[in-house]
Amino acid sequence: MEVKVHADILKANDVLAQQNRSFFEEHGLYVVNLLGSPGSGKTTLLERTVEACRSRPGLRIGVIEGDIETSRDAERIARMGVPAIQINTRGACHLDAAMIGGVLDDVPTDEIDLLFIENVGNLVCPVGFDLGENAKVTVLSVTEGDDKPAKYPGAFRKSRATVLNKTDLLQYTDVSMETVQHDILTINPGTRVIAVSSRSGEGVPDWVDWLEATANEWRGSRE
Amino acid sequence: MEVKVHADILKANDVLAQQNRSFFEEHGLYVVNLLGSPGSGKTTLLERTVEACRSRPGLRIGVIEGDIETSRDAERIARMGVPAIQINTRGACHLDAAMIGGVLDDVPTDEIDLLFIENVGNLVCPVGFDLGENAKVTVLSVTEGDDKPAKYPGAFRKSRATVLNKTDLLQYTDVSMETVQHDILTINPGTRVIAVSSRSGEGVPDWVDWLEATANEWRGSRE
Repeated sequence: MEVKVHADILKANDVLAQQNRSFFEEHGLYVVNLLGSPGSGKTTLLERTVEACRSRPGLRIGVIEGDIETSRDAERIARMGVPAIQINTRGACHLDAAMIGGVLDDVPTDEIDLLFIENVGNLVCPVGFDLGENAKVTVLSVTEGDDKPAKYPGAFRKSRATVLNKTDLLQYTDVSMETVQHDILTINPGTRVIAVSSRSGEGVPDWVDWLEATANEWRGSRE
Repeated sequence: MEVKVHADILKANDVLAQQNRSFFEEHGLYVVNLLGSPGSGKTTLLERTVEACRSRPGLRIGVIEGDIETSRDAERIARMGVPAIQINTRGACHLDAAMIGGVLDDVPTDEIDLLFIENVGNLVCPVGFDLGENAKVTVLSVTEGDDKPAKYPGAFRKSRATVLNKTDLLQYTDVSMETVQHDILTINPGTRVIAVSSRSGEGVPDWVDWLEATANEWRGSRE
């Protein structure tokens, strides 16, 4: 009985995700669904991404922030002069396609090229809900420990890239970058692992290079 | 419709949680449900707790480990000579009372005084599922950032204590301990906030003092 209900929810979500996808496609928006644990550094990565993309044409960014409560993350992004929309899930542990569909009218489609959807901080539940995005990207901070990909493989299996964040703290931990990278690539051989310190800025250009190449590849495929 | 189904699931869980609670009560076990994000340091805190409790009478520990995949955490605990049971949720984002009920026959009730249930790494979903425990305790690592209690208030609202873990890394972050403590106590004025470094051992005695006092208080209330 429980399984049947769950399947129905996912089916409804898939219908709505397809509607979102058509909207994004129609407006030429490349959309990234950003996943990760609470505190993995998703919002700070977005702040660094906004800064780095200012000098690159075709990478004007907009952000939809998903949080259980508060509008802190959208305020952080809006302070940078970037369009930001906050969704409060009121307790729900993930964004779903209906929540995204409900705010599409507020997306300034003519002013942006890339839309980031920052999901609720949760390495598990958001994985199963398609929002209509082009790519999922997981943010994992090195301070979470090198056993996380093996213990929570779902997000890594479905992500086109993983940003290994907070590398500035690596030297103070026992974490092995080799183990993290090896385990992620074992789970998903086609994915890309990019080491970043959102604090020092190290690795941010690599991440934005990947983002630009991926968005351009998608644009090329549409022509 | 969705809301109704959700309510039914919780009702069934509450019935089973009550059965677990009767079992724990009958065997005189004090039970702690340990919550926190992936990588907040729950298992390492348990390792330090096991060590610290060896010299204290009446605090013999057993552990039930909840993980989506792998038996790594139970192996880490078992290596310390402590009874450890691993539950794999096979994708589910939280433990529920039925999963705990299913392993109670394996709990060596005569050999232990305290039972820790380490939940799936997830600051959101496990909060809503009573397992029959005496107390919830949330582990939050300082590297997750000082905005987490305000953004994810549920776990803090329901926890009798929060362990602020990884304080050895505090000096390398911009995190304000005052903000974290203030926000937790605003959400839940009756809770206790205990700063710990599971790595250096700093604060572990404070945490175990609290644990011992809480368990003794419960024992006193049963006599």
